[in-house]
Amino acid sequence: MDISLRGRMIQASPIRKLKPYADQAQAKGVKVYFLNIGDPDVPTPQPVYDAFRSFNDPVLSYGPAQGFKELHTAMCDYFADYGIPLVPDNILITTGGSEAILFAFNVVADPGDEIIVFEPFYTNYNGYAYFANVTLVPLTLRGEDGFRLPSEKEIEAKITKRTRAILLCSPNNPTGTVYTPEELERVARLVKKHGLYLIGDEVYKEFVYDGLSHKSILEYKEIEDRTIVIDSISKRFSCCGARIGALITRSKDIYQAALKFAQARLCPPSVEQRAAIAAYKMGLKYFDPVRVEYQRRRDVLYEGLKAIPGVSLYKPQGAFYMIVKIPVKDVEHFVIWMLTDFSHENQTVMVAPAEGFYTTPGKGRDEMRIAYVLKEEDLKKAVVAFRAGLEKYKALHP
Amino acid sequence: MDISLRGRMIQASPIRKLKPYADQAQAKGVKVYFLNIGDPDVPTPQPVYDAFRSFNDPVLSYGPAQGFKELHTAMCDYFADYGIPLVPDNILITTGGSEAILFAFNVVADPGDEIIVFEPFYTNYNGYAYFANVTLVPLTLRGEDGFRLPSEKEIEAKITKRTRAILLCSPNNPTGTVYTPEELERVARLVKKHGLYLIGDEVYKEFVYDGLSHKSILEYKEIEDRTIVIDSISKRFSCCGARIGALITRSKDIYQAALKFAQARLCPPSVEQRAAIAAYKMGLKYFDPVRVEYQRRRDVLYEGLKAIPGVSLYKPQGAFYMIVKIPVKDVEHFVIWMLTDFSHENQTVMVAPAEGFYTTPGKGRDEMRIAYVLKEEDLKKAVVAFRAGLEKYKALHP
Repeated sequence: MDISLRGRMIQASPIRKLKPYADQAQAKGVKVYFLNIGDPDVPTPQPVYDAFRSFNDPVLSYGPAQGFKELHTAMCDYFADYGIPLVPDNILITTGGSEAILFAFNVVADPGDEIIVFEPFYTNYNGYAYFANVTLVPLTLRGEDGFRLPSEKEIEAKITKRTRAILLCSPNNPTGTVYTPEELERVARLVKKHGLYLIGDEVYKEFVYDGLSHKSILEYKEIEDRTIVIDSISKRFSCCGARIGALITRSKDIYQAALKFAQARLCPPSVEQRAAIAAYKMGLKYFDPVRVEYQRRRDVLYEGLKAIPGVSLYKPQGAFYMIVKIPVKDVEHFVIWMLTDFSHENQTVMVAPAEGFYTTPGKGRDEMRIAYVLKEEDLKKAVVAFRAGLEKYKALHP
Repeated sequence: MDISLRGRMIQASPIRKLKPYADQAQAKGVKVYFLNIGDPDVPTPQPVYDAFRSFNDPVLSYGPAQGFKELHTAMCDYFADYGIPLVPDNILITTGGSEAILFAFNVVADPGDEIIVFEPFYTNYNGYAYFANVTLVPLTLRGEDGFRLPSEKEIEAKITKRTRAILLCSPNNPTGTVYTPEELERVARLVKKHGLYLIGDEVYKEFVYDGLSHKSILEYKEIEDRTIVIDSISKRFSCCGARIGALITRSKDIYQAALKFAQARLCPPSVEQRAAIAAYKMGLKYFDPVRVEYQRRRDVLYEGLKAIPGVSLYKPQGAFYMIVKIPVKDVEHFVIWMLTDFSHENQTVMVAPAEGFYTTPGKGRDEMRIAYVLKEEDLKKAVVAFRAGLEKYKALHP
């Protein structure tokens, strides 16, 4: 009895597979600072709880496959506040941004087709590539130049007869890079020239620092028939467990095809959609203090890590991740060691090995992804413990 | 700009695509009895609402990919009450039974592989076959003999080199048939003999009438390494909008592969899992009055329809559906007509054309699926309106 090839080939989540080691550390009474996963500690806003409390339909019944109209409308208002005009029929509510990725892959590509993606990239794109049987073709970015996009020529060199789309994530997970209008225009020109789709993962839209602003691929009218945005409330409203995302497109063809896939799974969660409506109604001002908080965290972590000998990193402008090069041969081994063999004042740190964020073999083995989702004082303690751990590990594994 | 072939080929949900005609009827002030979709009107139990109200974590964060341990445990207790021993690691919580189907297809089959299914079958299996790029190979059942399973020989004749699994649904949607132990053993022998997997959709487990009881494929120890059960709280607790299902298997290989697909989508909805825990804690006694209610509805509908000239149907023992043959050439045309051109005392009825429940071309065109999810008095009124509509339609379209 062999399970399917894809069932054997699909990788375990590189972020989640090390969790048992963290459980072990906690079971021994060690305090673990979790910088490995983007699960924000910012409190979920009160209107979300109010929505759960006031849910009072006699039956918790199926909703529409595309989600509730009230949620579409609330999201249109939110995008309008960013200067992006949308209508309710541009928005298909999904079960997390994850499902929007799955729908997008299925709609633009057939099995064996290719999607160009810039690595390091959000590791779960890999999982969805297995689900959809599409091939992700990586173009490697370099930390030395801040993970900026390659030249038009370099991107073009990756386009084959089977290429169907380019997938961009901005603000980027895992690098924190926010692409400039010039970079986006470069990609927009290419997708138009080669008849490709452009998929933009923009779930970190509000997390942009240093006074910069986020430019959406929805702002390029000349490619609106080939543009799909992946959206989610998970990070936006600290609602990762709600599983409410969206696929956004102005193309009727894309929307109609995605809707058919959506009908197969019936509907997204009903009560959480009410919670999302309540959250969106808070308006953009909700994000101001959140943004200030994350910028401060980024600064604390960046300064703390930069001061450690042998560590090199780029200062990101967005999201809440950094890719950090550290002076060890195999970060996964180091991460496990930090959880099983090390503690500093009974504290340790969990980070994510970056290797799982690359598909090119061997890439990222000396890099880690850090999510700055903890309070400033915890981040400071985490840096102290991390530095102590790294020094001890280097002494033991020279 | 062509969307993918699969995006063009996947059918719109035959249950949901006619919804706009019902909206039109309602907009004109016509009362529509919805017998087209299995969205129960039984009130969602109070503990579900209590769970929403008492949710008070500071952050609505990601849960485990496999779901909360407390839910696994609550489900183990529920299955134990049915005499089916399970351990928490046999249960993977999914976003609705829908996602469990998707995981099961992906784990047992690669693109192009075949899964044998008995038609008419739950139409969304088709959607998931497109998602997973597997081919559903139908074996047609006949209403005349109560949609019983074919002989071992007939099933065996459908097995090819690419066959990976047999998919069974009992109690059945859309026929209402409850398979006998003898029928299940027939299939169990075949999957063992040919090295196949057996996928059992058992989401209607409690909806079995006339004192019959439901036998689960989990009760066959000799095939436990190849058995996957699709489960859901949607119908069980009138919680269709919660999107909480499960993939249940005693095979560690299947579980581990399904878990990797589950990790790609992060986790099922968190708050609804708490609601599910609360619902399971009510114990099996909760189902007694629900079962009595549905049996009465079945009887009302069966007697009402049987009395209409030219209508033929089989009396189902389970779930809350019937497949009914009616004297019209094209049921879809009739269904639309009932919504757009007909009303009786300002009332009409919406049913689901059965054609979408078959994959063999032309099959089911003169059949409808009825879901008896309304109160007795509404069902009676629905039968009156249906009968009047059918008579008028026949007169207009002889």
